[in-house]
Amino acid sequence: MTDDLRSAGAPTLEDVARAAGVSRATVSRVINGVRNVDPAIQEVVRQAVSVTGYAPNRAARSLVTRRADAVALVVSGAGVEPGPEGSGSRAAGDDGSFTAQVFADPFFGRVVTGVVNYLRPRGMHPVLMFAETSRARDEVVAYLRQGSADGALIVSTHAEDPLPGLLAEAGLAAVLYARPARPVPISYVDLAHQDGARLAAEHLLARDCRRIATISGPLDVPAGQARLAGFRDTMARHGHPYTPIAEGQFTQESGEAAMERLLAEHPDLDGVFAANDLMAMGACHVLREHGRRVPEDVAVVGFDDSSAALACRPPLTTVRQPVEEMAAEMTRLLLDRMARPAAPATSVIFEPVLVVRGSA
Amino acid sequence: MTDDLRSAGAPTLEDVARAAGVSRATVSRVINGVRNVDPAIQEVVRQAVSVTGYAPNRAARSLVTRRADAVALVVSGAGVEPGPEGSGSRAAGDDGSFTAQVFADPFFGRVVTGVVNYLRPRGMHPVLMFAETSRARDEVVAYLRQGSADGALIVSTHAEDPLPGLLAEAGLAAVLYARPARPVPISYVDLAHQDGARLAAEHLLARDCRRIATISGPLDVPAGQARLAGFRDTMARHGHPYTPIAEGQFTQESGEAAMERLLAEHPDLDGVFAANDLMAMGACHVLREHGRRVPEDVAVVGFDDSSAALACRPPLTTVRQPVEEMAAEMTRLLLDRMARPAAPATSVIFEPVLVVRGSA
Repeated sequence: MTDDLRSAGAPTLEDVARAAGVSRATVSRVINGVRNVDPAIQEVVRQAVSVTGYAPNRAARSLVTRRADAVALVVSGAGVEPGPEGSGSRAAGDDGSFTAQVFADPFFGRVVTGVVNYLRPRGMHPVLMFAETSRARDEVVAYLRQGSADGALIVSTHAEDPLPGLLAEAGLAAVLYARPARPVPISYVDLAHQDGARLAAEHLLARDCRRIATISGPLDVPAGQARLAGFRDTMARHGHPYTPIAEGQFTQESGEAAMERLLAEHPDLDGVFAANDLMAMGACHVLREHGRRVPEDVAVVGFDDSSAALACRPPLTTVRQPVEEMAAEMTRLLLDRMARPAAPATSVIFEPVLVVRGSA
Repeated sequence: MTDDLRSAGAPTLEDVARAAGVSRATVSRVINGVRNVDPAIQEVVRQAVSVTGYAPNRAARSLVTRRADAVALVVSGAGVEPGPEGSGSRAAGDDGSFTAQVFADPFFGRVVTGVVNYLRPRGMHPVLMFAETSRARDEVVAYLRQGSADGALIVSTHAEDPLPGLLAEAGLAAVLYARPARPVPISYVDLAHQDGARLAAEHLLARDCRRIATISGPLDVPAGQARLAGFRDTMARHGHPYTPIAEGQFTQESGEAAMERLLAEHPDLDGVFAANDLMAMGACHVLREHGRRVPEDVAVVGFDDSSAALACRPPLTTVRQPVEEMAAEMTRLLLDRMARPAAPATSVIFEPVLVVRGSA
């Protein structure tokens, strides 16, 4: 293997010691954060580090501390390894389509924002991994076992994702965004989805909408189920025993298709709750194409308060999910777990709020 | 520091050697890819690795190979370190606003997709970093110097970004997405922006639009300048010496504001070229609010072919920038550079194509 430029003439610990006028051992103690070093000497060493441009070798330090000081941010799915012809049940297609699909949803950018904001002041950066096939999941587990990262933040796109179970079994530090569909002894952050859906129903009812339908999320996902349950319960409590439902997949296209179905069966509807903003945006497009004004003829409420809510015309009234704060809390839980591996799993649930804009 | 669960009972090289019935040295040679090991023995060792669940320690291996087998994906800006009150000229505000802003543009998700698709089959994963302040830039340089990553992929949001120069000076491996505003001896991939803008102009002219305006990108960015130059030159060559311009910032909001200005000054315009899809989407919203039909009254052409082009109503006719392919090529150039650090910097320019949809 060819030598690389990085090491050509790179300053050494000895250079720092010489510049600081202290011993090599003292420099080492300061750099590794050992206590009981005279503050004045610490300052001299720090200045010498700065002047020489010395950067301690991360690999060498990791061997001593047994820490990589890195965490993996994993977007996982439930696909199986595609066969030689790319077949395989529930595989998300080729790699490109899964990663492209993930970032088409503004949700993931918000997760990254929250994670980065928490890690950065601590000198850490997330390693971005995707795990939508069984082979990719094995790679995540191996990556953590070999110490390339100290823990994993998991955002799953499917309810049947086996990754949380694999990580728990291997005793690796991991925290999930959202409760897993099946019980796994892993910490997670989540939103009180039912409360959020209740806010949406109450808002539409308070606007005097009386023929209200809903575009649900995928019903094999806990968030999809909970938002529908919360919405339906609230409607029932207000004397509406039956709410028309069309199931969507949290994408704009699925929201458009669902809105077409609802309009065909219930042309007189006057209110729609879509279980996320992308679907609400799709619903607004279809309503307008059918000559319905939003909110005058049909009021529309979304969920998430993502960038799609502001991009929509009219801007969406929506239930805010504080994704950035939740992702930061998920990261805090992971770092806590890395420091205290034996602590029991925990969960933190956030409360949603209604944000009123133009669509309802 | 507390011991972590990972190492409790983790299988060792000795366990693999015992399971395979070979020496420790043989296992080590197979794992480190040394040549001249009998293929049958290689297979026995691989099976023993699989059965025992052995994962070689990455830090230990990095010390030997002097490679982290990791690359940084850096989104950088040109801000300076904010002062104690968060002041500082051109700083992008707090951390949250920069990262949030970055991911509000579908462009970055496409870059991630291209990078991940190239790295994954090679067992590598990108470390995501943001560098919009001078301190954050120093951190990126230190991260590379200390060997936490072997090279950097840089996507810059500002023309005056000093990071490429810092990396070149330090002799670190780096490749840019898009040509830097000032010459720096660093490899990059880019698009033939002028050719793309020419396609947009020719399409509007072929549709018999005669009062055509343009919403440019920021004019201190090479891509913004080049798209405007290409558009204006083509218009001039077709006998239109003057093209009304409103400058935008590549965001939807700035596209809306620019469209308002253009409509106020040129209420009879019948064609608009916006230098990216987000601004074109904003323009469509404003045109509709002013009672103009797209494309019947005003034809609109965007640039990028991002997810915004499909989310828009009508879907945007746009100039396709193959971001995923360009990001993959950027990654290939970086890995090439890491293998041959002394090779001269190079550039790869991609050709755009026009994608015709509903808006023009």
